[in-house]
Amino acid sequence: MKLIRFGNEGQERPGIENKSGEWLDCSAFGEDWNEAFFGNDGINRLKSWLESNEAGLPKVDKSIRLGSPIARPSKIICVGLNYSLHAKESGMALPESPVLFMKASSSLSGPFDQIIIPRNSVKTDWEVELAVVIGKKASYVDEANAAEHIAGYTLHNDVSERDFQLNHGGQWVKGKSADTFAPIGPYLVTPEDLPNPDNLRLWLKVNDKMMQDSNTSDLVFKIPHLISYISQYMTLLPGDVISTGTPSGVGLGLNPPQYLKEGDVVELGIDGLGIAKQAVVAYK
Amino acid sequence: MKLIRFGNEGQERPGIENKSGEWLDCSAFGEDWNEAFFGNDGINRLKSWLESNEAGLPKVDKSIRLGSPIARPSKIICVGLNYSLHAKESGMALPESPVLFMKASSSLSGPFDQIIIPRNSVKTDWEVELAVVIGKKASYVDEANAAEHIAGYTLHNDVSERDFQLNHGGQWVKGKSADTFAPIGPYLVTPEDLPNPDNLRLWLKVNDKMMQDSNTSDLVFKIPHLISYISQYMTLLPGDVISTGTPSGVGLGLNPPQYLKEGDVVELGIDGLGIAKQAVVAYK
Repeated sequence: MKLIRFGNEGQERPGIENKSGEWLDCSAFGEDWNEAFFGNDGINRLKSWLESNEAGLPKVDKSIRLGSPIARPSKIICVGLNYSLHAKESGMALPESPVLFMKASSSLSGPFDQIIIPRNSVKTDWEVELAVVIGKKASYVDEANAAEHIAGYTLHNDVSERDFQLNHGGQWVKGKSADTFAPIGPYLVTPEDLPNPDNLRLWLKVNDKMMQDSNTSDLVFKIPHLISYISQYMTLLPGDVISTGTPSGVGLGLNPPQYLKEGDVVELGIDGLGIAKQAVVAYK
Repeated sequence: MKLIRFGNEGQERPGIENKSGEWLDCSAFGEDWNEAFFGNDGINRLKSWLESNEAGLPKVDKSIRLGSPIARPSKIICVGLNYSLHAKESGMALPESPVLFMKASSSLSGPFDQIIIPRNSVKTDWEVELAVVIGKKASYVDEANAAEHIAGYTLHNDVSERDFQLNHGGQWVKGKSADTFAPIGPYLVTPEDLPNPDNLRLWLKVNDKMMQDSNTSDLVFKIPHLISYISQYMTLLPGDVISTGTPSGVGLGLNPPQYLKEGDVVELGIDGLGIAKQAVVAYK
């Protein structure tokens, strides 16, 4: 199953993309794709509901904006330096355990929304990532049981301001949290439709030039380990996002480094999770 | 005005403490003290509503549990090393600009709830802090206009696991985010009832022994600067919490260091913001 949310920013309605690739309006189901939905076995309830209701659902015109396929989560927790070549290009050692940091959830945006370069930014960068959405509260979860806490998978551009992140004193959160810095989607794909998340090509182009092109098989710390590991430090709530890290090819790692500027277009994709595309504009 | 929330965990109801020190149930107002409430001028609407309704409100028995005086916010953003003696005791330089980090909002708890020492913790520590709650969306706010974005002030124990924070690789969020690591309250006090937040004694005792005893006048970066500064990096939403930093006297800074253990009792207070008290238990 592929969940979507569509409509104007802040007024998104829930929907699905069906097997024929049509978008269907699921407003009649009466729930948003949010913490309460995921936490109350929403995916399974929705599946049952669709069996008797899908045929009658209104189609959604594909000219309508897509929002993030999930409502604003309680947290977006990201994994740093989780592809060995990216750690190398960042000039950092491969970590012995997952490096975690947060993005402000206010940075969430839709997969085709603009990326706004923040005021005073000089180094706005891109990062294609496979993101996992939590389906069931997770606290002190074993790796063996991690899979049952997954609602699905989605595509995330972990947009990052490297100067804010690395040179403004302290913690990375400063460079990860500007508005529009977390375009997520187009879809949330449930696990039965993405049987092998550990072997997916992921790529990102800037102005049609391939910048990142890797495979989730290169993840240093795999998804079950990440869920288990993070859940030792904090409780993961339904709808929470874990972004699993980016492969090499970010602007910071180029020689000379290259950063986003107004007019650039970023396109990214992951096998089975669709494609997203973001035009870059300056803050006004 | 002093806002409270009372009742069992996850089922808190909104209330106030009136001028006579009585707790009144404001469920009839029909809103929780959350993002929608603060963002829709809730404080002023509540004040007007109380003028005609306060006399008839049900009293709340003071044996009832207090929750955090605000519902779970979109983010809890903390300022590190914002008292010079605390920076020194932490072995760190006084920062040139505010050090920011996040706590998972799932760590939120009530002011008299237990602190649960997480599994595998060896260094669970205390930090009394003045916290500011945002009343109005703040993005690129000037210092001069910062005050109008404040809903009120509250007391926060920024509970911290030092080993997780400093020795587990990467960012501080690992040591700041366990369940019960953000006891907030008892009250949210609105600005007219806390005219001078820059001159408040704040203190914390462990087992009746005074460990921290300082004054917010020693804050390196003051509240208007913090709001303005943070709002350059991310959008602050109504109900969001900024915790302004802790003074010296944390367990990490003692010689030898001292950390919380099962059976300890932490008591803390700030002038005008009341007192909180937390019994410490081990995770089971």
